[in-house]
Amino acid sequence: MEFLTNEKLTIVGAAGMIGSNMAQTAMMMRLTPNVCLYDPYAPALEGVAEEMRHCGFEGMNLTFTSDVREALTGAAYVVSSGGAARKAGMTREDLLKGNAEIAKEFGENVRRYCPDVRHIVVVFNPADITGLITLVYSGLKPECVSTLAALDSTRLRSELAKYFHVPEDEVTGTRTYGGHGEQMAVFESTAAVKGKPLKQMIDDGTLPAADWEVIRQKVVQGGKNIIELRGRSSFQSPAYLSIEMIAAAMGGAPFRWPAGAYVNSGDFRHIMMAMETTIDKNGVTLLPLGGTPEERKELEKSYQHLCKLRDEVIEMGILPRIPDWHRLNPYLG
Amino acid sequence: MEFLTNEKLTIVGAAGMIGSNMAQTAMMMRLTPNVCLYDPYAPALEGVAEEMRHCGFEGMNLTFTSDVREALTGAAYVVSSGGAARKAGMTREDLLKGNAEIAKEFGENVRRYCPDVRHIVVVFNPADITGLITLVYSGLKPECVSTLAALDSTRLRSELAKYFHVPEDEVTGTRTYGGHGEQMAVFESTAAVKGKPLKQMIDDGTLPAADWEVIRQKVVQGGKNIIELRGRSSFQSPAYLSIEMIAAAMGGAPFRWPAGAYVNSGDFRHIMMAMETTIDKNGVTLLPLGGTPEERKELEKSYQHLCKLRDEVIEMGILPRIPDWHRLNPYLG
Repeated sequence: MEFLTNEKLTIVGAAGMIGSNMAQTAMMMRLTPNVCLYDPYAPALEGVAEEMRHCGFEGMNLTFTSDVREALTGAAYVVSSGGAARKAGMTREDLLKGNAEIAKEFGENVRRYCPDVRHIVVVFNPADITGLITLVYSGLKPECVSTLAALDSTRLRSELAKYFHVPEDEVTGTRTYGGHGEQMAVFESTAAVKGKPLKQMIDDGTLPAADWEVIRQKVVQGGKNIIELRGRSSFQSPAYLSIEMIAAAMGGAPFRWPAGAYVNSGDFRHIMMAMETTIDKNGVTLLPLGGTPEERKELEKSYQHLCKLRDEVIEMGILPRIPDWHRLNPYLG
Repeated sequence: MEFLTNEKLTIVGAAGMIGSNMAQTAMMMRLTPNVCLYDPYAPALEGVAEEMRHCGFEGMNLTFTSDVREALTGAAYVVSSGGAARKAGMTREDLLKGNAEIAKEFGENVRRYCPDVRHIVVVFNPADITGLITLVYSGLKPECVSTLAALDSTRLRSELAKYFHVPEDEVTGTRTYGGHGEQMAVFESTAAVKGKPLKQMIDDGTLPAADWEVIRQKVVQGGKNIIELRGRSSFQSPAYLSIEMIAAAMGGAPFRWPAGAYVNSGDFRHIMMAMETTIDKNGVTLLPLGGTPEERKELEKSYQHLCKLRDEVIEMGILPRIPDWHRLNPYLG
């Protein structure tokens, strides 16, 4: 059986629920034989490595370590779920400070140990901010860092499929942009159900405005709903999607959903957020963004919210002021 | 993207850690679009179904239900992890009574709702016994029911690879037979490391007898070790391997490890246990068993242990006495 690449993939946070699922997903997808699992918590990490070996995968060269230098040295691809998990009742933003510090250290370690890494996917929340911090401190080109943002778009697809009682495949073009938090911009103009534009269905009353609002709320609250139902944060879907992202960066099928990417043009400056993107061997690339003027206004609001979070992190001293970013990362000049 | 089959696959116990991983694994492997998740615990089940939808898999027709009739009706393939989990300090046998009753009910439901099912994989412990009870009550042909037993053989491969510092692929023919419990028969005559027979390495002192005993113990205690390391029972490896088993029964790659199968010939009568087997479209088939006289004696001991467990279940009134089995299942005459 062939692998997509032979280059080293490091999974950061591999002892956790998301990270251990990433490990299994990556090995099942046969991305590379050279998978390295990293987590500071050694016993559980060893347990995950054992489980992976017990799966009996063929052709693998699986390693694991609690030494970050060993983990990152030589890594061509990194997926990091290595933050604290969101607990019931917390907003993503509550996690800001702790995970911002983790992201800073992660970025510094990337610069130190794998400055030639091809692509990094950052998954831990708030991912737009932790991804941005990683980008600033790693010194990488913006196309080399993306964040998991697809979950909101897949949740929108799921909610519309449930509402209209159609297979999910018949719901197309579902898109949310901006933050991956409570301020996300849920677009309606890009989506269609059985080929009929969603906007038209809202305008002609097929989808009453009140019901659409309920659907939007369900998308925004999708993560909280999983916590209520399962008694734990979602882990299977973020793990699976982030491995699809890194597979795309390795040269697999291009990623089909929005990713968080660095944006510094037009109305949006010095920010990382979900945009229309593709991920392929060239990393993450911004694509033209559609949307109505109202939707652009929603996105502007989401952007402003992210700027506030970014500025809080600057206030905390975790990120330098924007004019100083280029000292850490020349590509952000 | 093609599927292996269009027939219905039902995952029993899908709200649990093993079951939810099975769901993801089956969908990633694109076994069939028609996956049905079943669990009596409705909220967590819905959470798992939501997560699966949020993965954004294409072409799926995923359903979920807490109604066992709906779940099993029309099922061509069933994987059941639907027992209670083993807790720290428990032996597999401690679970006997509770899970035996669950298996009886499961078998009765199979007979009632999907008597034409092609293959069932039983995963919940002690799987040799729960699989046997399922077989008796379902009325299915013996080739239609197998149990997860591969984990002990993959654990042996893993331990030998660690000991000799070689890639796992260079350890071949690792086999354990009999019970999937503390009385398993760990064979040495079938295994080789870098092509050198393990038995020869033991005989010539390359693998000192004391070290081999440590390795054997690690295999036997493999499940307990995961509990100690991860703070929870292994779930990724049993889920993955059992889905590989059902994939083989659907016509995918033949399963490469021992499975638990019904045995009623030679020295072994009216029992289900790990044997040399293959799983393919014809279900599970027994293959000739190698081994030295000493190993056969070990296997005989493991068999006797399973007979004792089986007889306990008969004493409990959960299984009828053996001469009456044919009334429930004509294929066990």
